[in-house]
Amino acid sequence: MKVAVVGATGLVGTKMLEVLAERNFPITELIPVASARSKGKEVIYKGKAYKVVTMEEGIAAKPAVALFSAGGSTSLEWAPQFAAAGIRVIDNSSAWRMDPTKKLVVPEVNAAVLTADDLIIANPNCSTIQMVVALQPLHAKYKIKRVVVSTYQSVTGTGKKAVDQLMEERKGLKVGADDMAYKYTIDLNAIPQIDVFLENGYTKEEMKMVNETRKIFEDSSIGVTATAVRVPVRRRCFSACAIKIP
Amino acid sequence: MKVAVVGATGLVGTKMLEVLAERNFPITELIPVASARSKGKEVIYKGKAYKVVTMEEGIAAKPAVALFSAGGSTSLEWAPQFAAAGIRVIDNSSAWRMDPTKKLVVPEVNAAVLTADDLIIANPNCSTIQMVVALQPLHAKYKIKRVVVSTYQSVTGTGKKAVDQLMEERKGLKVGADDMAYKYTIDLNAIPQIDVFLENGYTKEEMKMVNETRKIFEDSSIGVTATAVRVPVRRRCFSACAIKIP
Repeated sequence: MKVAVVGATGLVGTKMLEVLAERNFPITELIPVASARSKGKEVIYKGKAYKVVTMEEGIAAKPAVALFSAGGSTSLEWAPQFAAAGIRVIDNSSAWRMDPTKKLVVPEVNAAVLTADDLIIANPNCSTIQMVVALQPLHAKYKIKRVVVSTYQSVTGTGKKAVDQLMEERKGLKVGADDMAYKYTIDLNAIPQIDVFLENGYTKEEMKMVNETRKIFEDSSIGVTATAVRVPVRRRCFSACAIKIP
Repeated sequence: MKVAVVGATGLVGTKMLEVLAERNFPITELIPVASARSKGKEVIYKGKAYKVVTMEEGIAAKPAVALFSAGGSTSLEWAPQFAAAGIRVIDNSSAWRMDPTKKLVVPEVNAAVLTADDLIIANPNCSTIQMVVALQPLHAKYKIKRVVVSTYQSVTGTGKKAVDQLMEERKGLKVGADDMAYKYTIDLNAIPQIDVFLENGYTKEEMKMVNETRKIFEDSSIGVTATAVRVPVRRRCFSACAIKIP
């Protein structure tokens, strides 16, 4: 299978390449794609260096699948162009998740909703993914009415800038305002705000857990209340969850 | 007021002295008490050094109040001896909290239950305290039926050994098994276990939040489910909380 990784030089793109290698994904040709700014860079896959190509070159290479992890606006602009060329896009950003014409899929939970016509497939926020995997068998058997969830989310979820902020702060260095991924020191701290606050008093991250869960379970009556908290942890993200069933 | 601080050389005792000074508590004589092992040590209060005395000397000094923060077993042994001498003990350990003959008090919530006869007064677990302060006005008005709570607890709650473990790990040093306050690395980690697991699958810390809340609100019908998590944070402890009212 010809596979493109769009955003291959980013934190998540790099991890995608690692996981594809670890799982021995049947790739016949790897096409690392990134913005024009990254042109000429190389990425390493299974010990071999690959030249990063532009979006246009990525489409021209006609991969079967393009794994997108390049941010929402890139995805809004480019995923349709990949799809128009018949390339199946699996998008890691929030761009298409709540679009009613796109499926929001966690393979372990609702892969069955996919058809051959779905060329842009969204995957949920990481906090939603782990939660619905745990909830799905309970929901199937008992029909969940209400979910109360609190998250403990690692800095890697924010991206490289956040990891850099934490690592600088750990060295005792003062991080300049421009280099702060968070408004506050994250080292030895916990920040009960992920993404911006919305009008209803919840953050965008918290509302993703509400709305994405409802879409995946195809049940808008499930009550979800979430508290999303950033903690100075590097690699894990987990949630504490209580549910109500009839 | 003559005030004894029992466990004055510990992490919490030191903080108690700091807070007493900050608040300008009306102390006419300070009596720092600790185990015989600490005899001869000095503590600093408002810039002045005080010699640490033994338990027996502490009782003989006849303070009006003894603030205990010396662990459960010390409290079980010594609080009654202080009380027998007419000294009012305010105990920070878990020793007396669930004893039906002792009051469990958060001043902002239920100070009214105290009488002059209460010589040993327990205060709750830190996670319970902050929670009931927030819940009390809601409970008074609506009668809370159910509470779902998740905590983000700092390493200082465990004590000096835990702070030392974290600080050593931050320097990249391997901490020997004997010096580990936790079974796992706490640096860049979050540990969803505080204190031991009980037979019902909850930890002791989590069950404290259940039982202490019921005792303080004098309502054994309140449903509480808690998830207590240790995070590599130095000074803050907070909770995410959802409640159900009729």
